[in-house]
Amino acid sequence: MPLQSFVSITPDSDFPLENLPYGVFRLRSGGTARVGVAIGEYVLDLAVLDEAGLLASTPVAGQGLFTRDSLNGFMAAGPAAWQAVRNTLQRLLAADEPTLRDHQPLRDAALIRQSEVELLLPVQIGDFTDFYSSLYHATNTGKMLRPDSPPLYPNWRHMPVAYHGRASTVVVSGTPIRRPCGQIKPSRSPEPFFSPSRALDFEVELAMVIGVGSELGVPVPIAQAEEHIFGFVILNDWSARDIQGWEYQPLGPFLSKNFATTISPWVVPLAALEPFRCSGEPQDPPPLSYLQPPRPGHFDVTLEVWLNDTRICQTNARHLYWSFAQQLAHHTVNGCRLRPGDLMGSGTISGPTKESRGCLFELTWRGTEPIQLADGSTRRWLEDGDTVTMRAWAQGDGYRIGFGEATGTIVANSP
Amino acid sequence: MPLQSFVSITPDSDFPLENLPYGVFRLRSGGTARVGVAIGEYVLDLAVLDEAGLLASTPVAGQGLFTRDSLNGFMAAGPAAWQAVRNTLQRLLAADEPTLRDHQPLRDAALIRQSEVELLLPVQIGDFTDFYSSLYHATNTGKMLRPDSPPLYPNWRHMPVAYHGRASTVVVSGTPIRRPCGQIKPSRSPEPFFSPSRALDFEVELAMVIGVGSELGVPVPIAQAEEHIFGFVILNDWSARDIQGWEYQPLGPFLSKNFATTISPWVVPLAALEPFRCSGEPQDPPPLSYLQPPRPGHFDVTLEVWLNDTRICQTNARHLYWSFAQQLAHHTVNGCRLRPGDLMGSGTISGPTKESRGCLFELTWRGTEPIQLADGSTRRWLEDGDTVTMRAWAQGDGYRIGFGEATGTIVANSP
Repeated sequence: MPLQSFVSITPDSDFPLENLPYGVFRLRSGGTARVGVAIGEYVLDLAVLDEAGLLASTPVAGQGLFTRDSLNGFMAAGPAAWQAVRNTLQRLLAADEPTLRDHQPLRDAALIRQSEVELLLPVQIGDFTDFYSSLYHATNTGKMLRPDSPPLYPNWRHMPVAYHGRASTVVVSGTPIRRPCGQIKPSRSPEPFFSPSRALDFEVELAMVIGVGSELGVPVPIAQAEEHIFGFVILNDWSARDIQGWEYQPLGPFLSKNFATTISPWVVPLAALEPFRCSGEPQDPPPLSYLQPPRPGHFDVTLEVWLNDTRICQTNARHLYWSFAQQLAHHTVNGCRLRPGDLMGSGTISGPTKESRGCLFELTWRGTEPIQLADGSTRRWLEDGDTVTMRAWAQGDGYRIGFGEATGTIVANSP
Repeated sequence: MPLQSFVSITPDSDFPLENLPYGVFRLRSGGTARVGVAIGEYVLDLAVLDEAGLLASTPVAGQGLFTRDSLNGFMAAGPAAWQAVRNTLQRLLAADEPTLRDHQPLRDAALIRQSEVELLLPVQIGDFTDFYSSLYHATNTGKMLRPDSPPLYPNWRHMPVAYHGRASTVVVSGTPIRRPCGQIKPSRSPEPFFSPSRALDFEVELAMVIGVGSELGVPVPIAQAEEHIFGFVILNDWSARDIQGWEYQPLGPFLSKNFATTISPWVVPLAALEPFRCSGEPQDPPPLSYLQPPRPGHFDVTLEVWLNDTRICQTNARHLYWSFAQQLAHHTVNGCRLRPGDLMGSGTISGPTKESRGCLFELTWRGTEPIQLADGSTRRWLEDGDTVTMRAWAQGDGYRIGFGEATGTIVANSP
C-alpha cells in the first residue's frame, strides 16, 4: 500500500511520497536558486519550510542550507541529517498530517508547480569519475574493437575499471548539445583531419552523487561505502566515437567525452531505493577482499532511452557487474579523497539482450546495423536535431521511484 | 640590469622584482588565509595593501579578493587586472618609490618573512588535466612498454594527447605522500594481489593555472589561448607504476595517479616568463591549423629533481614538443569549457640526454638500471622516507624567475 499524501499523486508519477528526490530550482518568474524536493506535480521549497521552522527537529534547521544554488551544503551534513529531513518531509506531506496541509498560506508558498520552475544543476561537482562496470557493454565493445583478442582485458573481472571525466561540462537535462569538432582519422584516410564528429553517440548510465567526503590517504571500506552516497541521477555520457577511436591510446578517452555530459535534475536518495536492493550478476573469479560486499549492492532500476519518438533501449541497473559500493571502495583504496558533490557514473548499462544495449555503438554494432525509428528513418549515429531522452525508475507495488529524465538535443556545428 | 627593490634580494633568489608570483598564505601564529606575492625572503600581503588603498589604481581594488583562501577570485578578473596589479606592485616595491618603503608601520604589516607563514594550496582547482607533451618521454615510455612496435602511437605527433586527472588530491608542496595500496600483478604472478605499491615514482612537470574560463561549446583559438593562462607551477605527478601497468587498459591511468599530485605554492605569472619565450622542438608533420601557433609558445625554464641529497634530473621545459598554447587550444577545440582554477600539467618533461629524463621509470629504465645516490645507496623506485624535491627557474641576466619548490616525502603504508 503506497504512502498517502495530501498532494495528489497518480500511480504512474515519478515522485510519490516514497521518493522525495532533491533538486535545485528557480522560479521562472525570477528569484534566487533554492533547494526543493519533488512531490507529484510539485516542488516543495525547503527554504520556505526551514524559514517557517518546520525543519526544527532536524540537525540542519536554520543553517540556510536550502537557499543555496547546490545541494552540497546539505549533503555534507551527512546521513543522519539526510534521514532526519526525509522523515520530517514524509510526515509533513502525509495525508493525515495537518501542519502544512491545513495552513493554506504556507502551503501556497511552499508547494510550487513544477511547470513554474527551472531546474538547475543540482550539485556543484567536485570530480567526475566514469566507471565501465557493465560486463555486457565491455564485452560488446571488446568484440567490436579487438575482434582477434579476448573481448575483456585481463583486469576487467578483477576491478571496476574507470577513468576521470570532466566536471566543468556536466550539464543539467535540457541543455542543448553542440556536436563537437575534433581530429578524426577514418581507417581509409592516410592522415587525420578536422571535422565535426560524424559518429555522435549517447551512453545510458546511473551515477552516484557523493554526499560525504573522505580523508586523503584513508580508504573507505566497502562496508561503509554507501554511507558516502547521497543519491543517484541518470547520466548520459555523450561520446564522439570517431574522435575517441583516434585519440584514446594510450591514455584513454578525452575530447571524445568531455564536450558534454547530461544528468537528470533530481537526485534520488539512496534511502528511496532501499526496497529495490538486489544482487548483481555473479562475480567470477571472486573479487579481492577489499571488493567483497557485506550485502547485495545492486538496485533494480529500469532505464529507457528514447531517440525522438522511438524507444531504442530498455535496460536495468541490476545488469551491472560491479556495484556502486564496489566502485566507491575501489576508487578510494589507494587513499584517493572524496568530496561532497563528486559524481561517479556506472558506465554504459547494457544487458544481455539486444534491446538492452545502452549506446548506439552497440545497438548499431559500430554503425554496421542501422536502427529503425518510428518515423521510418534510420540511424547509425545521432543526427543534428535529434533528441535523446533517458528515463529511469524503480517499480514498487502501486508506486514508482522515478528519476525524471535526462534529455538533450543535438545542435549543428561547423568547423 | 635587474630591477631594484628596497627589499633586499640576492642574485640567486627565486623571487626578484621581475617575478612576483602569487600564493595563498596563513601566519604560523594564526589568522585567516590571504593572498600574497613572494619578494626576496618576504611575502607581501596584498590584503594589507588593498585595505591601505594602495591598489586603488587597479580594477580589483576594494573587492576583498585578497582576503580569500584561493587566487580564483583575482584570477577571474582577467589579464588586464593581472597586469595592472603587477605594474602597481613593481612600482610599490621599487627602490626609488617611498610610498611603502618609508611608511614603516605599513611596511611591517605588509611584508612578512616567509619563515613566518604557511603556504597553502594557491588555487581552488576546477578540473585537473595532464598532458603527455614530451616527445622524449613518450618515446622512452613506448620503447619500454611496446618494444616490438613503433614507440609512438600514430596520433602522438598530430595532437597533444592528454587525460583527466583528479582535482581532489592535488596537494601543496610539503604534504606527506602516503604510499598507495592497490592491485598489482607482476608478469610472473598468475593472479593480481593487493599490496602497497612496489614501484612508486615521480614525474616532473610544469602546469598552467587557468585564470579566465571559457564558454561551453566555444573553442579558444590558439591565438587567444595564452590570455586564459594566469601562470605556472611545478607539478609532481606521483605514479605507482605497478598499479598503472595492471589497471590502465583500456581507459588510461586512474588509481595509479590519483592518490596524490604535488604542486609548488607560488604561481609564477605568465608575464614574468615573457623574456624566456622560445621555440620548442620542430614539429613534423606540421600540426592541423587549429594547432598552428602565431608565435613561439615555449619557455626556457630549467627543472631539477632531487632525491634526498642527490640531483637525479635536470631538464628544461623547452624540450616539450607541444606548447601550452597548443595544449589549451586542443583541450577546448571540442567546446570543452574552462573555469578559473583549472590546472593543466605538461606531462613528464624529459629531454634528449639521460640526465634529463623526468621520472624514475625512464632514469632506471623500468627499474632495470638502478641509479646511485650521494649516500652510496641505489634506487629503482622510491622508498619510504625518501624526499623528492623539484625546483624550476628561468635564468635572466643577473636575476632568476624562480618557482620555489615542490617537495614531498614518502610515508609507509601497510595493506
